Amino acid sequence: MSEVAITLEGWYALHDFRSMDWAAWRLATDKERSQALDELQSFLKEWSNVDDNKQGSTAVYSIVGQKADFVFMHLRETLEELNDIETAFNKTLFAEFTQPAHSYVSVVELSNYVNSPGSDPMQNPEVVARLKPTLPKARHICFYPMNKRRSGNDNWYMLSMDDRRTMMRSHGMIGRKYAGKVKQIITGSVGFDDWEWGVTLFADDALQFKKLVYEMRFDEVSARYGDFGEFFVGNLLTDEKFKAMLSL
Amino acid sequence: MSEVAITLEGWYALHDFRSMDWAAWRLATDKERSQALDELQSFLKEWSNVDDNKQGSTAVYSIVGQKADFVFMHLRETLEELNDIETAFNKTLFAEFTQPAHSYVSVVELSNYVNSPGSDPMQNPEVVARLKPTLPKARHICFYPMNKRRSGNDNWYMLSMDDRRTMMRSHGMIGRKYAGKVKQIITGSVGFDDWEWGVTLFADDALQFKKLVYEMRFDEVSARYGDFGEFFVGNLLTDEKFKAMLSL
Amino acid sequence: MSEVAITLEGWYALHDFRSMDWAAWRLATDKERSQALDELQSFLKEWSNVDDNKQGSTAVYSIVGQKADFVFMHLRETLEELNDIETAFNKTLFAEFTQPAHSYVSVVELSNYVNSPGSDPMQNPEVVARLKPTLPKARHICFYPMNKRRSGNDNWYMLSMDDRRTMMRSHGMIGRKYAGKVKQIITGSVGFDDWEWGVTLFADDALQFKKLVYEMRFDEVSARYGDFGEFFVGNLLTDEKFKAMLSL
Amino acid sequence: MSEVAITLEGWYALHDFRSMDWAAWRLATDKERSQALDELQSFLKEWSNVDDNKQGSTAVYSIVGQKADFVFMHLRETLEELNDIETAFNKTLFAEFTQPAHSYVSVVELSNYVNSPGSDPMQNPEVVARLKPTLPKARHICFYPMNKRRSGNDNWYMLSMDDRRTMMRSHGMIGRKYAGKVKQIITGSVGFDDWEWGVTLFADDALQFKKLVYEMRFDEVSARYGDFGEFFVGNLLTDEKFKAMLSL
Amino acid sequence: MSEVAITLEGWYALHDFRSMDWAAWRLATDKERSQALDELQSFLKEWSNVDDNKQGSTAVYSIVGQKADFVFMHLRETLEELNDIETAFNKTLFAEFTQPAHSYVSVVELSNYVNSPGSDPMQNPEVVARLKPTLPKARHICFYPMNKRRSGNDNWYMLSMDDRRTMMRSHGMIGRKYAGKVKQIITGSVGFDDWEWGVTLFADDALQFKKLVYEMRFDEVSARYGDFGEFFVGNLLTDEKFKAMLSL
Repeated sequence: MSEVAITLEGWYALHDFRSMDWAAWRLATDKERSQALDELQSFLKEWSNVDDNKQGSTAVYSIVGQKADFVFMHLRETLEELNDIETAFNKTLFAEFTQPAHSYVSVVELSNYVNSPGSDPMQNPEVVARLKPTLPKARHICFYPMNKRRSGNDNWYMLSMDDRRTMMRSHGMIGRKYAGKVKQIITGSVGFDDWEWGVTLFADDALQFKKLVYEMRFDEVSARYGDFGEFFVGNLLTDEKFKAMLSL
Repeated sequence: MSEVAITLEGWYALHDFRSMDWAAWRLATDKERSQALDELQSFLKEWSNVDDNKQGSTAVYSIVGQKADFVFMHLRETLEELNDIETAFNKTLFAEFTQPAHSYVSVVELSNYVNSPGSDPMQNPEVVARLKPTLPKARHICFYPMNKRRSGNDNWYMLSMDDRRTMMRSHGMIGRKYAGKVKQIITGSVGFDDWEWGVTLFADDALQFKKLVYEMRFDEVSARYGDFGEFFVGNLLTDEKFKAMLSL
Repeated sequence: MSEVAITLEGWYALHDFRSMDWAAWRLATDKERSQALDELQSFLKEWSNVDDNKQGSTAVYSIVGQKADFVFMHLRETLEELNDIETAFNKTLFAEFTQPAHSYVSVVELSNYVNSPGSDPMQNPEVVARLKPTLPKARHICFYPMNKRRSGNDNWYMLSMDDRRTMMRSHGMIGRKYAGKVKQIITGSVGFDDWEWGVTLFADDALQFKKLVYEMRFDEVSARYGDFGEFFVGNLLTDEKFKAMLSL
Repeated sequence: MSEVAITLEGWYALHDFRSMDWAAWRLATDKERSQALDELQSFLKEWSNVDDNKQGSTAVYSIVGQKADFVFMHLRETLEELNDIETAFNKTLFAEFTQPAHSYVSVVELSNYVNSPGSDPMQNPEVVARLKPTLPKARHICFYPMNKRRSGNDNWYMLSMDDRRTMMRSHGMIGRKYAGKVKQIITGSVGFDDWEWGVTLFADDALQFKKLVYEMRFDEVSARYGDFGEFFVGNLLTDEKFKAMLSL
Repeated sequence: MSEVAITLEGWYALHDFRSMDWAAWRLATDKERSQALDELQSFLKEWSNVDDNKQGSTAVYSIVGQKADFVFMHLRETLEELNDIETAFNKTLFAEFTQPAHSYVSVVELSNYVNSPGSDPMQNPEVVARLKPTLPKARHICFYPMNKRRSGNDNWYMLSMDDRRTMMRSHGMIGRKYAGKVKQIITGSVGFDDWEWGVTLFADDALQFKKLVYEMRFDEVSARYGDFGEFFVGNLLTDEKFKAMLSL
């Protein structure tokens, strides 16, 4: 068996994609819409408090195209908290006007391919900050899941630790070129959801998503060993923008 | 033809994943909800009695994300009993507020790769306890189906018994490292459902699912020969937690 | 071009999988349910007559899990008769309480891999009985579709007739070991449905499905050349059991 | 780049598969059903006139199994005409009792693999008759889409024109063996729909579909280079049979 | 890592495929239909103004077959504008009579495989015109997404820049043969949607789509390295034709 890369885990993540049932929203009474919007606002406020108290973090973005209307990306300490958020949301009147569109369960992860061995990374505040991050308020979000390929001669899990480390280092170099332009959060989902990792990117210029992912695709790690799922791209929903999006 | 590993079978298993129809649940009258909750409680009590009498076992967990809201994992002596449980549930008012989300039919299985030949394993109470287990009340559940791959040079079913036994032994060693942290139940589903096996894991620390499955993925059995389906992860639903989840 | 195995065909087959709309069934009046059950009973009687008159055969089984609630497996002389059965069923009140879940169109088939050349097999009453069989009333049914693989070096259709015949003979030997335990009906669906064959198994002990299919999977025909679709497993529905299943 | 086979195109084709909403049909008033049937009858008459005037052709068949209840296969001079037929149908009351089940857009095609070079095939009335055919009233229809494979060493589009011509000729020989038994219409869908070709077969004996497709599967063109989609099989719907199918 | 081709990006693109809910449309009152048509007309006028002001471009086509009834292809400066268009549309009464059928998010792209290095292409008005094009009013549209393959020996992303440039040049030559017959707009979707590129073709003769795509398929870039998704084909919807399509 190949040596296994040690990973560090932080907050659990739930990407909760929802679509509006616009016909029902239109048919609702003003009073119903008003109640629903109040519910939404109090969730947004509650999640914002969690963020302020460093007990988790939540990002709220609209999604472009028909795959979903918006996404809540929640980071919390436990799977139970994520489950409670879902259930609380589902019990609201506002939820009645939405439909589940897609979800993804994972946990913020750092792999030791990029860390110096010997030191205890959990004593490193920078590492802890990356494992329990405050999600940025960038203009755009991009989410996609991925696997490392196990196919014929292109089998990541049969490579030696050295080969994997070398390739991951070169991969990380590309990511670093986009520092300041793209914020990247890797979440592991082996044992939690259908792909091995989730990748969430934040940027003020959405073109940087395309340039980063495209450049990485020529890197051997992605070219030979990367399998990619659905891509979602969206725009920041401040409380005001969310309100405007829902106002008829 | 390669020599075939002899397997031992115990209780049949039905993983029954369901989603709540939250809108209908909200719109129901108090009386309807009360009746529905009574029905649910009497099922939970009945299944608990079956557990106490060692005539089967049932685990009840919520599911994180949109794939389902909860799962009943039933173990029973016959396929007819599993069918009767489904049908009885479907006839209730409570079932009207749920929707089928996913199901899996299999049978608890031990393969003789790990047993010493010569002895009759069914005389071994430890073996019987593993074939007809009482499902644990761990905080978390993880379920996924899998196949052994038959693809080009990576064809498990064309390997010799010796090669398969050696690889499975190494595989089992990883599992054993997680003893006390992860309880693993393997169910065979060849001839019963769309994958060859189901894997159900129980743990108090959900991260151990990720670590176990990830470590195994580097093992040749998984790296070259494992194909994996959908993953479901969830939290224990005691009767009280189930009630709380459903209270508006 | 490889020599083509000659096949013999008998009755056409329609596997008609249906799910109950339990909510609608509960909401129906006693009178409606009573009418619907009468319709069902008269179909069952009519199909039973067809069986008695050797003009076809119909098997009725419940299905375990959420894929379907029950299956009608109809064998008839022509595709028109199968179509007429469907249409007649769809026009009933009972059908309103069901939903289509899956179907499969094929024709009972014997391949000459296992026959001695020279003789006219249609003069053989045993052969005719296998092509136009009376479906058994075994406790359990198992259905799955399959293809012979055409993938890189594993291409069944590029093998010589001799190689195919040798492999099929070994394959048939496994089947014969289960004689008396598992009754197997092979139906060809090239040109009729999405897979090349359907396999329907009947047994009083459902474990025999698993043992047979698993043992065959190590046989080169399956290991290298078999691709398998969805599996359905179920329990015999006598008229009484069907009634009990539907009584609220 | 390999030399490209020149193709000749005739009428555009729309295969329009529909399912009945039997519950709605049952619940309709006699008057509604009568109006709907009148609409259907006038479409059938109109399409029959188009056929008589050689401005196109329409075949009407029921479909066996749950994939659809019937199919309209329309051949017309332009994509706009096909679109107009769809839209006109969708606006009727009858259409309210149906649901879209599947569709396929293509164009009748002859490839020059089988033609002698030098002559202008469009001057050949036989060629024109094949490009703008009157669809037969055979008892049965079979439809499936297909691709030529581009996979590793089995890449049709990397072969030389000579290799492709040789293989297609042998392929055509099999088709010719079925002359008089099976009428075959090839439609090209590159750029129009998800597969490269559609194959529509007509026969009075449905078994001939199975024998033809099965025999071809051993031919190298299909064995190594053919990928096949969903198969649909059905029975001729004369106006009377259609009426009978819909009468309650 | 292979050298990465530099790409130039222009307007963002949203292909928004919709189906009519014809039953609801029929059941609507004249007043509702009239309001809905007014809404549609004002969108069409608004989008036409955007076109006139070179702030974007919108094409409106019907779709043949059941995949959708029509498509809006919008080009705009930002993802937020595309999102706003969607949301504004979804809030109308007209939208209530439609259903989402498919969507695609991408950005108009030119790759430098075809440009001379050294010069700044954004100073070239011809290049800018191609990156921010006015969509043509051709009779027909064709849309499909595609990937460059990464599979075993057919891995585009592992090729040298020189090999890729040579192949892309030959590919471009085919495209140029269709100049005047087919207008081609390439949009990049890496990081935005599920495929790497979208291809939108416009032509007055729909057969040219088939001939172009088929001829390209024999080119090594497509034959060995192209993977293709769903194809949509349709007819120009002028305001008058759209009105006619919707009039009962």
